[in-house]
Amino acid sequence: MRPSGRKTDQMRKVSFERNFSKHAEGSCLVKFGDTHVLVTASLEEKTPPWLRNSGKGWVTAEYGMLPRSTHERMRREAASGKQGGRTQEIQRLIGRSLRAVVDLQALGERQISIDCDVIQADGGTRTASITGAWIALHDCLKWMETRNMIKVEKVLKDHIAAISCGIFASQPVIDLDYLEDSSAETDANFVITGSGGIVEIQGTAEGAPFSEDEFLTLLGLAKTGCAELVELQKQTIA
Amino acid sequence: MRPSGRKTDQMRKVSFERNFSKHAEGSCLVKFGDTHVLVTASLEEKTPPWLRNSGKGWVTAEYGMLPRSTHERMRREAASGKQGGRTQEIQRLIGRSLRAVVDLQALGERQISIDCDVIQADGGTRTASITGAWIALHDCLKWMETRNMIKVEKVLKDHIAAISCGIFASQPVIDLDYLEDSSAETDANFVITGSGGIVEIQGTAEGAPFSEDEFLTLLGLAKTGCAELVELQKQTIA
Amino acid sequence: MRPSGRKTDQMRKVSFERNFSKHAEGSCLVKFGDTHVLVTASLEEKTPPWLRNSGKGWVTAEYGMLPRSTHERMRREAASGKQGGRTQEIQRLIGRSLRAVVDLQALGERQISIDCDVIQADGGTRTASITGAWIALHDCLKWMETRNMIKVEKVLKDHIAAISCGIFASQPVIDLDYLEDSSAETDANFVITGSGGIVEIQGTAEGAPFSEDEFLTLLGLAKTGCAELVELQKQTIA
Amino acid sequence: MRPSGRKTDQMRKVSFERNFSKHAEGSCLVKFGDTHVLVTASLEEKTPPWLRNSGKGWVTAEYGMLPRSTHERMRREAASGKQGGRTQEIQRLIGRSLRAVVDLQALGERQISIDCDVIQADGGTRTASITGAWIALHDCLKWMETRNMIKVEKVLKDHIAAISCGIFASQPVIDLDYLEDSSAETDANFVITGSGGIVEIQGTAEGAPFSEDEFLTLLGLAKTGCAELVELQKQTIA
Amino acid sequence: MRPSGRKTDQMRKVSFERNFSKHAEGSCLVKFGDTHVLVTASLEEKTPPWLRNSGKGWVTAEYGMLPRSTHERMRREAASGKQGGRTQEIQRLIGRSLRAVVDLQALGERQISIDCDVIQADGGTRTASITGAWIALHDCLKWMETRNMIKVEKVLKDHIAAISCGIFASQPVIDLDYLEDSSAETDANFVITGSGGIVEIQGTAEGAPFSEDEFLTLLGLAKTGCAELVELQKQTIA
Amino acid sequence: MRPSGRKTDQMRKVSFERNFSKHAEGSCLVKFGDTHVLVTASLEEKTPPWLRNSGKGWVTAEYGMLPRSTHERMRREAASGKQGGRTQEIQRLIGRSLRAVVDLQALGERQISIDCDVIQADGGTRTASITGAWIALHDCLKWMETRNMIKVEKVLKDHIAAISCGIFASQPVIDLDYLEDSSAETDANFVITGSGGIVEIQGTAEGAPFSEDEFLTLLGLAKTGCAELVELQKQTIA
Repeated sequence: MRPSGRKTDQMRKVSFERNFSKHAEGSCLVKFGDTHVLVTASLEEKTPPWLRNSGKGWVTAEYGMLPRSTHERMRREAASGKQGGRTQEIQRLIGRSLRAVVDLQALGERQISIDCDVIQADGGTRTASITGAWIALHDCLKWMETRNMIKVEKVLKDHIAAISCGIFASQPVIDLDYLEDSSAETDANFVITGSGGIVEIQGTAEGAPFSEDEFLTLLGLAKTGCAELVELQKQTIA
Repeated sequence: MRPSGRKTDQMRKVSFERNFSKHAEGSCLVKFGDTHVLVTASLEEKTPPWLRNSGKGWVTAEYGMLPRSTHERMRREAASGKQGGRTQEIQRLIGRSLRAVVDLQALGERQISIDCDVIQADGGTRTASITGAWIALHDCLKWMETRNMIKVEKVLKDHIAAISCGIFASQPVIDLDYLEDSSAETDANFVITGSGGIVEIQGTAEGAPFSEDEFLTLLGLAKTGCAELVELQKQTIA
Repeated sequence: MRPSGRKTDQMRKVSFERNFSKHAEGSCLVKFGDTHVLVTASLEEKTPPWLRNSGKGWVTAEYGMLPRSTHERMRREAASGKQGGRTQEIQRLIGRSLRAVVDLQALGERQISIDCDVIQADGGTRTASITGAWIALHDCLKWMETRNMIKVEKVLKDHIAAISCGIFASQPVIDLDYLEDSSAETDANFVITGSGGIVEIQGTAEGAPFSEDEFLTLLGLAKTGCAELVELQKQTIA
Repeated sequence: MRPSGRKTDQMRKVSFERNFSKHAEGSCLVKFGDTHVLVTASLEEKTPPWLRNSGKGWVTAEYGMLPRSTHERMRREAASGKQGGRTQEIQRLIGRSLRAVVDLQALGERQISIDCDVIQADGGTRTASITGAWIALHDCLKWMETRNMIKVEKVLKDHIAAISCGIFASQPVIDLDYLEDSSAETDANFVITGSGGIVEIQGTAEGAPFSEDEFLTLLGLAKTGCAELVELQKQTIA
Repeated sequence: MRPSGRKTDQMRKVSFERNFSKHAEGSCLVKFGDTHVLVTASLEEKTPPWLRNSGKGWVTAEYGMLPRSTHERMRREAASGKQGGRTQEIQRLIGRSLRAVVDLQALGERQISIDCDVIQADGGTRTASITGAWIALHDCLKWMETRNMIKVEKVLKDHIAAISCGIFASQPVIDLDYLEDSSAETDANFVITGSGGIVEIQGTAEGAPFSEDEFLTLLGLAKTGCAELVELQKQTIA
Repeated sequence: MRPSGRKTDQMRKVSFERNFSKHAEGSCLVKFGDTHVLVTASLEEKTPPWLRNSGKGWVTAEYGMLPRSTHERMRREAASGKQGGRTQEIQRLIGRSLRAVVDLQALGERQISIDCDVIQADGGTRTASITGAWIALHDCLKWMETRNMIKVEKVLKDHIAAISCGIFASQPVIDLDYLEDSSAETDANFVITGSGGIVEIQGTAEGAPFSEDEFLTLLGLAKTGCAELVELQKQTIA
């Protein structure tokens, strides 16, 4: 039995609150149960140096956790003077995932900076970030379309969503919360497009190694879960 | 006329949402109009080195702005590797203000860490932080009282609230929003206790120097405003 | 009684030694009793990026303490790898104070960098820095006038001086030395122009909150004190 | 056709040179073709703070590239003052991979630090690092066994090896070199134990998303490849 | 001819002003012509970790230049966030030179921290620092002797002095000022004890390599110069 | 007797392995006995800012030690976030030494970056680095000559080699290994050109000061040793 009483293939309640921020071109407060992430998408007219005069744009992401988003207060990264390895790993993942569904040529020589700030953490912050970032990115592109800068359908090629699956108490389950995550034997994150293409897989054995069959079960759960998330995205922007 | 249509002595709508965070011992989402700050109060059993074996505790504060809490995206301080001068100035002010109403001996050898994170900025983030932090601190102390660690009334000697006043378009006004703040001739922040004692005054001439009379008018506005804020705090914790 | 035997409205002996540095365009060793600060004003032909092509110049300040300027040796900020919050607060204050009396348009697209280095500390280093910096700035502008770069009277609109006042042993006193400062109930710094306009007020209750009346007494002391300091500046540059 | 003329399931020539370092308890120069990594295993009697008095030990890893191990000289991380996100990601992966086959209780309260320094890079530095690190770790444990500190067979539960697979020119291939890696559509790293258990999977679509079938083909290649690498490890330590 | 009109074997006017600092246990403002360095010696009861319980003490040194001690303003090292290579080289040299004449066992488990801060630079700051540091160190030890902590004669085994020599305009000269230093063909620093023993030699060809004979001439100049400096030290502490 | 059984004037076995690196324009694995340093020379078309449009080029050097190149594992400088004082001292020395034999005008507006990475340390890493760097630099220039960018004989004016000498067990000896180095009374490094000109001398008394005679004996040993090293360089590039 899962601590939350959920079924093995049951995700937490997921919600998207659009336009959460007054200033950002696109923004979304995404909730996967008690995991709450504020995502903003900021349009910037500058691009990274290596893209100058290439005609191509860029989508990048930064990730942070508020110090008391967690059970125990964590040290503030701005105070300790650097972003930790986990933070960098996650923000690189978010950026890659979004770029997989963006036509950078069609975006033109501009950068969209995605900021994912975890307001409250209960497991799955990176998957909630990616899934919510798609909404913020979409709304930022809509904002640009209104100003005749781009066509959303040219730039945004597909949906993208992410979910974690893992083996908890010997059972493959979807969307691990903190209690499950901290004692799972295997933990895997999947990033999947609206058309079912796989963009990222990250699987880690926390305890004993896992088998190909176990992994395929997790992948199966993830495909169903991401399809649900994409459906929710569609309803949200409808 | 003020851009918002407010009267010169009219504050923005102020609200406190207690228990905003699932994990923190005390927390509050404070809003001064479009300025939204999430404040958490975290109890930590350690104290700073210089208080070891003194029997006294400590209250400290950290402050941060989400990168897109502002009109233009700011660089993330964790990414730039240090907290700027303004950030440090503000978090020192918040800490001093709260300690002014706390009996550190009665708190005992523990630290309460206040985190003020600006979710959305529209002027007055430091005064909103202080005013909301009092609620989070109070609730953290209540949490401790429930566990027989302290008596709230022994530790928390008074209310504390803060408000900015300034001279905008040659008129003394209270609670400046971003539009006013960015073109005010004089800008002052006041931190005042529930019993009307002054804890901090910070006045700065942005343009022409100001006179003693002008300053006294600002102080008068601040005293009335802080009294209102304290009244709201009382209703909130009632 | 004050530890130094001074009257409540009596400042320490103040002196300015001009041209202390062989290299700087303007320099001054300012002494407020045992507090000694070396101030240099350096003309630089570059301006900050945000002023490029604006036709306006800039005055900025940096502040530092020699490691053994204090009773106990402090850690060298260059060795610890960053400037502390207090340092940043003070250097921001010095820069703002000086800019309040400078016509940046008349200065032209150049920067004057003020360096305030505390050789020996005995309380009041920031007020001594501001007061001495006015001399160094003036002499730097004179140096420029000699080379037909500017007219001093067009750029430097007024004098600026600063003094601390506080409540020590229940008595309002002016120009606190270290012994007084470390046990004062209230500590306030005032920056005032030659014509009596107020530029900065920073008042802090170190112990009990203070009242409006107490604050007005401190402001009264400060106005008299700053007028004396401005008089001394006038004699110095005469 | 692969640029190197290799078959799709053909790894580069792999070699291990044991005892490359005079000082380290265990060391190995591992070569996957033109990718050369020097791995050392250093026994340290200290453990991380969170393991004090737990009776358990730790295996950790650091990774670095010599500045001119690459086609273009890279900036030295020691000179730029921090380890980049990619470096941190890789060293976290190496550490997790090795810990998956180590009984930390049987190791006792000690730390083994693995250093993987890339002497020359031609793709696959992280997989070469993990595969070579197993040799260095084994030899370090042998060194300890000789001194009656541990039993190797109790501490080292299995072999571990890693290989990259990817889709290059629409073909699934194993062990990508730099030329392939820089234009692969999909790139995946697999870490697999001697008994065939999966410890880590990291798959990334560099261009178009990939399908489940494509992924399974890559996993199949990796299982065969890692089995070969484990065989080579066995011959090496025989 | 030397720009200053000095003879080839003529040092600049050297002076020591003892007890320059009110707070430090020992201090000295040393001047070699227009090069002015403030040296303080601070007694600290802590020692570096590697000397704990060894019964031995330590003498260490830090060096810094005020930003406008030089012809052009330099960036403040505290602001740039690190000490440059030159700074570290010099402070290591100062520390080694002083330790060469100190009996660390007789000092006991304490640290004396020497701070050399360049108030004004005109060449030879490191040699002035070492020569003046001996005075500050001596006075710090005297301060300790007065408090029955040590015997000066047991701890301080000899005098130490330093001078630069170089080949300027094809002539070997002593005590180079900035003008000479910046165009010297060869530049060498010598640290020599009161009894004539050599402690440090650092010779660098800035242009063409130098010969053994040239080097011996420089060494000869240095020996005479350091003997004069030691004589001045003796008069100063007499 | 020396621990290694060598005669007082006998260097360790020295070897140069050219073209050690596949990517670098010039490279050399230099061995002085058990001290092994990998040196690469990288051609970069950029020059430092202060040489822009001067027509002159630059040769610079960086130095690092692999964490377990030493008896005890050292902390990785990239992880600790800065290069230590010793590292900076050595890399400045290497750069100066090479520039002494390079005609920067004839090099043209380009930079050659020398990286010296210590694979295994047993004393004398800086002298091995300089001596091996000459080979890597030579080969980089040859690479450029092949592409008609420069003439080697115009750019590279002479050979350069370096050796340490010291007083060990009261005997002057050449080329100290780690055992000798760690207990030598005096340690000196000499950098000498092919034509016998001295470029750098660094002598330090680790224990008692040394005399002029002792120093001359060390210099004599160094001159013979460097001549041998230059001979080996000539054979290597023949």
